[in-house]
Order: sequence, then structure tokens, then C-alpha cells
Amino acid sequence: MRVMGVDPGNAVTGFGVVERKPGLCLIAAGTIRPGMVEHGPARLAIIYKRLLEEIDRHLPEAISLERSFVAVNVQSAFRLGEARAMAMLAAAHRDLALFEYTPTDVKLSIAGHGRADKAQVKYMVGRTLEAESVAQMADDAADALAVALCHLFRMKMPSVAPASRRVRN
Amino acid sequence: MRVMGVDPGNAVTGFGVVERKPGLCLIAAGTIRPGMVEHGPARLAIIYKRLLEEIDRHLPEAISLERSFVAVNVQSAFRLGEARAMAMLAAAHRDLALFEYTPTDVKLSIAGHGRADKAQVKYMVGRTLEAESVAQMADDAADALAVALCHLFRMKMPSVAPASRRVRN
Repeated sequence: MRVMGVDPGNAVTGFGVVERKPGLCLIAAGTIRPGMVEHGPARLAIIYKRLLEEIDRHLPEAISLERSFVAVNVQSAFRLGEARAMAMLAAAHRDLALFEYTPTDVKLSIAGHGRADKAQVKYMVGRTLEAESVAQMADDAADALAVALCHLFRMKMPSVAPASRRVRN
Repeated sequence: MRVMGVDPGNAVTGFGVVERKPGLCLIAAGTIRPGMVEHGPARLAIIYKRLLEEIDRHLPEAISLERSFVAVNVQSAFRLGEARAMAMLAAAHRDLALFEYTPTDVKLSIAGHGRADKAQVKYMVGRTLEAESVAQMADDAADALAVALCHLFRMKMPSVAPASRRVRN
């Protein structure tokens, strides 16, 4: 099972691909930065195009998207909605299932409590994937990996159960 | 000069195409209703696809989009941002300039004052385009025509000046 997590943003969109085989492996992670020179439609077109490129390169089976419930103001909610829509459209255009998780879902599944800070989440993502490179990553890329991991943890499939539980059964 | 106005919405997206030749003519207007059965990504994909179809059918030279500043809550702002993004991406993918106007801009240019109600705007759109069909249209389609007209009125080109001013010059 390979999942691409996306942490959408108008300035920076993070993406991160994780595979369970059955151990959890970091496949790829990075950020999309359209640059401040581009205005609205061109910025969105860059985010959309780059997301499709990463999907076609890494062939995830699902997209996991962070669903925010808060925004600084209505304008920033519009901007965030526009960036989110690029991930949603890319998923639809590649026939990929899309799953959404709140920041609390993500923190809870990665760090064990819903109010973990960014540094804790980043640390736990690196430890879970046994990837030292996570510490040096942009926060948005690490957040995207966290959203991807959250989906893998949440899937109630036999292959997703922790090894200890499989042994007991 | 042919302009497509778009009034984006998650449930209903209105579109309306107006041409100045030099009189103002209604070319087309309608609504895109993805249906409530579809979930997020599929809904957006339908809005995007239908907008591209209307652009390719009517070949506008620009897109005029209503830019809201208010939303009932943050969630509805996200939803509206997602729908707006479909119009922005469609414009980018067809290399069309995109112009944004606030509801106040639109009301002011169509009805002469910024607090005109929907019925007044609809009436004035029908009168401006000399099209009786506007009265029977869905509000979202009439609103989209209003946004298209707003752009044509706002363009400070000689051909856009009212006939009376052209005569005096």
C-alpha cells in the first residue's frame, strides 16, 4: 500500500509518499513552491501540474489530505481552499481515492496525543520511517509524510495491524 | 470582446458569456450542478470539466470571477475556495486572463449602487442585455452575466466608453 500525503498551502504545498511493504518506507517527499511572482491562476496551475507529476512518478494508490478547520481569516481560508482543490482535482483525474484527516487526527496517530507540536510530529515521522533525512526536511514535506502515515495507521486492514497484535492472533 | 463571467459555488456554479460588438449581447448562460451524490474531488472535477467545455464552446477572451470577502463560516469559505479554484485553473489552462470583482463592484457597475439586491441586479442584467430570458434564469446564471458585464464596464478602453462619451470626444 503506497500513499501520498499532501499538506496544501498557497505559498508552499508539501507532499510525501510512504509505502507499507509491510515495514513503513519513505519513498519521496518534497515541497512545491510556485514562487511569489506568479498570481492566482498561474500559481494554482503550477501546484496542480507538480502534484500530477509526483503522482505519475510515484504511483500512490491513495491521497491523504490534511483537512483544516481553522484559518486566520476568510481570505486565507479561500486561499487554502484553492490549494486544497488542486490536490482534490489531481486525485480525481488519476482515479485515486482521497482521504481527509484533521490536524488532530494526524497528531494523535503520529505522536500519540492530539496537541503535539510540529517538532514532535517531525521527530516521530523520522523515527517511524527510520529516516534521518526527515529532520532536515522542510516542515511542509514532513507534515505531508505525517498525513500519509496517518492514513496508513487508520486503515483497519489486517496488514495494517501492529506486528505484536498479529502475533497474538 | 467576449467575456465569460463565473459565479462559483460548491452546489451551483453559474456561468454567463457576454460579447460587446459594440452593443452588449448575451451569448450563453447556465449553471453547473454536480449533484449531491458526488463527493468533494468528483464534484470539483465535474465543475472543472464543464467550465472547460463552456470555454471551448464559446471561446471567451477573458474570465471574470466574483471574489467574495465573506462566508458563513471557515468551512464554507474552504468549499467556496475550492469551487473558485476550478474557474482559476480552467482560465490558466486556456491561457485566459482572469479578472476578479467583489460583489460590491458588480452591484455598483450593474445597478448603480453597491447595495442592490439580487432581484435588482437580475432586472438590470436583463435590461442591459435586452434579453427577456434573464428573468427566467437561475440566479447563479444571472449573477455570472453580471460579473461578465462588470468586467466589460470596467475596462478603460475606448471601445468600452459609453456611446454618449464617444460622441462628445
